[in-house]
Amino acid sequence: MSARAAIAGVGATPYYKRGQSAPQTLYELIGKAVIAAVADASLAVEDIDGFAFYASGFTPGALMETLGIPEIRYSAVVSSGGGGSAGALDLAASAIETGRAKTVVCIGACQQSDRRYGAVLENIPLNADDAFLVAAGLAGPGHTMALLAQRYMHKYGVSREAFAEVAISTRLNALPRETAIMRKPLTRDDYFNARMIADPLCLFDFCLETDGALAFVVTSAERARDLAQPPVLIAASAHGGSRDWGRAFHWMNMPDDVFASAGGEPVARRLYEQAGITPDDIDVALIYDHFSPLVIMQLEDYGFCGRGEGGAFVESGAIRFDGGSIPVNTHGGHLSEAYVIGMTHIREAVEQLRGVAVNQVAGATHALVTGGPAPVPLSGAVLRADR
Amino acid sequence: MSARAAIAGVGATPYYKRGQSAPQTLYELIGKAVIAAVADASLAVEDIDGFAFYASGFTPGALMETLGIPEIRYSAVVSSGGGGSAGALDLAASAIETGRAKTVVCIGACQQSDRRYGAVLENIPLNADDAFLVAAGLAGPGHTMALLAQRYMHKYGVSREAFAEVAISTRLNALPRETAIMRKPLTRDDYFNARMIADPLCLFDFCLETDGALAFVVTSAERARDLAQPPVLIAASAHGGSRDWGRAFHWMNMPDDVFASAGGEPVARRLYEQAGITPDDIDVALIYDHFSPLVIMQLEDYGFCGRGEGGAFVESGAIRFDGGSIPVNTHGGHLSEAYVIGMTHIREAVEQLRGVAVNQVAGATHALVTGGPAPVPLSGAVLRADR
Repeated sequence: MSARAAIAGVGATPYYKRGQSAPQTLYELIGKAVIAAVADASLAVEDIDGFAFYASGFTPGALMETLGIPEIRYSAVVSSGGGGSAGALDLAASAIETGRAKTVVCIGACQQSDRRYGAVLENIPLNADDAFLVAAGLAGPGHTMALLAQRYMHKYGVSREAFAEVAISTRLNALPRETAIMRKPLTRDDYFNARMIADPLCLFDFCLETDGALAFVVTSAERARDLAQPPVLIAASAHGGSRDWGRAFHWMNMPDDVFASAGGEPVARRLYEQAGITPDDIDVALIYDHFSPLVIMQLEDYGFCGRGEGGAFVESGAIRFDGGSIPVNTHGGHLSEAYVIGMTHIREAVEQLRGVAVNQVAGATHALVTGGPAPVPLSGAVLRADR
Repeated sequence: MSARAAIAGVGATPYYKRGQSAPQTLYELIGKAVIAAVADASLAVEDIDGFAFYASGFTPGALMETLGIPEIRYSAVVSSGGGGSAGALDLAASAIETGRAKTVVCIGACQQSDRRYGAVLENIPLNADDAFLVAAGLAGPGHTMALLAQRYMHKYGVSREAFAEVAISTRLNALPRETAIMRKPLTRDDYFNARMIADPLCLFDFCLETDGALAFVVTSAERARDLAQPPVLIAASAHGGSRDWGRAFHWMNMPDDVFASAGGEPVARRLYEQAGITPDDIDVALIYDHFSPLVIMQLEDYGFCGRGEGGAFVESGAIRFDGGSIPVNTHGGHLSEAYVIGMTHIREAVEQLRGVAVNQVAGATHALVTGGPAPVPLSGAVLRADR
């Protein structure tokens, strides 16, 4: 597939520590992000004719009324509990490719003042799936992901040293960034002295809890070339995934090959095929990092190293911005910058490919973005500089 | 746009009066509909590689696990509170047209045992939009749609005689159908003696309350031709709508031209353009009928008669199956067959174009389906027999 859609504008609110965005509502945060994104693209809010949401619950009519959008021709949501951030780009691209709409905004936002990530049992509304998990003490993402991490460590002999390297290298990337919530250096001692939350996940393996919104303007590559910013081409986008991964996440009874992975292989395969590239061509990887071990498993899913080799790979310094072979989460990721369910990773990919990132990878041409390893559909995108 | 996507299979549960589907869960109903739809298409459940949901809240992973679907490549939801039924077809078509997936199931279901349509104040969770409406006594769709109907009657001199004709002609269509919940003839006296619920909407202007699920298999037209059923081509599909209509629905302060309409014009315009036809080419119209006056307003939006002429048009007998110029809701619609939020209308369109409808319109080549006039996005589709 040729890159027929492109990101022409990016907008974001400040990233607030959980609860500190009050008294703004979630709609206010979204509205501010959308206005900033269309301004960045040198477009007007009235030009918007489509929405691609990552997360349900938003009312297109309310956004149209609040922002002054006269007519929409596309409005869809990735049906995902957590993995769909890059899937919103995929839906927007499908609307652009088919001519359904001309200017689609992708919107992702969260206000964790309303919903804590480090969930405790009492906070979880029970449905059929959760009932099974909660009875086993698995009440939040940290609990279930801890089991995957345990299995991964056991099967491949990976130690917490590898997880520490993810946390520490990500923090290093956050230090020079004004957008980052965590700007204090993180040492190896800090990591190993931190309290254990869900063994083997300690405090610094967990992502932050954030309020914030981001928006991206997606239009045709051709039109993007006439706008204010250098176009960032959507060279590939995909969402989906395997039943076995969904089963691993929900039922915890799968073979090690599935269980000790992040489920990203089916999406990775499609992305590289669409973009016509290999992992070697990726210059910077923005990997959904709600928990540090899942970054390592995704590095394997996406082919940056072999299965089971992720621990040694990161411990070798491969993911460092400074000198690594594949710089990862140069923005500080969910672990140290902010957690807006994958959307900050898309922003960083755009800034890298525009050449304006704070931690700029010299000459970055291809950026990989992944949407989190959570219930299917997972998602990913390969973005490409237009040169 | 050429018809690159087609409906190859249809599946449905029985339609249950509200509450009578117990102890089945909503997922069971959906699973049964999906299994029936793939069987109808002579495909296997394992062939499914995409979902297009009408209504959020479904977990793709749970459906994959329950049904045995190995991998998906598309999973999206129309972001609509009520108007998106045909929008699910539009999303599925976009996935097929772009090669994202090969076999997408569109799923719509409801179990009104959990949620009553004729809502009373106490049942409504308050959000910012609702707070304004509920304070004015507008707690459910019947209340807000009654205001539109009042304005429509006032502006165009339409009387309840026209609404009665919609209710009576729709009931006539339901009488011979085993799927219909209401199979007792409805007389003019019955209509006018019925209790008023939200003036001018009486009992028989309201749709039913139903439990049930429907599923449609969408694939390429080319592939559909090799399957068991005659393909029903998606000649056009669209979702979206105008801010002014959204505003009419939420804020009740728009000019008459907007307020006394069903908001369908932007979608209608796109459908006819895509399909390359005019309203004269439509052989049967399956119009979302949660309330009878909205059928009349949609007949105007979709160009079957002029603005304000809908009352006289239906009173002339134009929408009757037996002798009308444009038979409407030949399945008995939401008013008399069942209310599964627009999905039964798609099923009827398919049966008409396969030539197997109970109330078969002879030689039907084009069927119009509309998704309800509720918050934007609204939706519609033109389906075409493959001959």
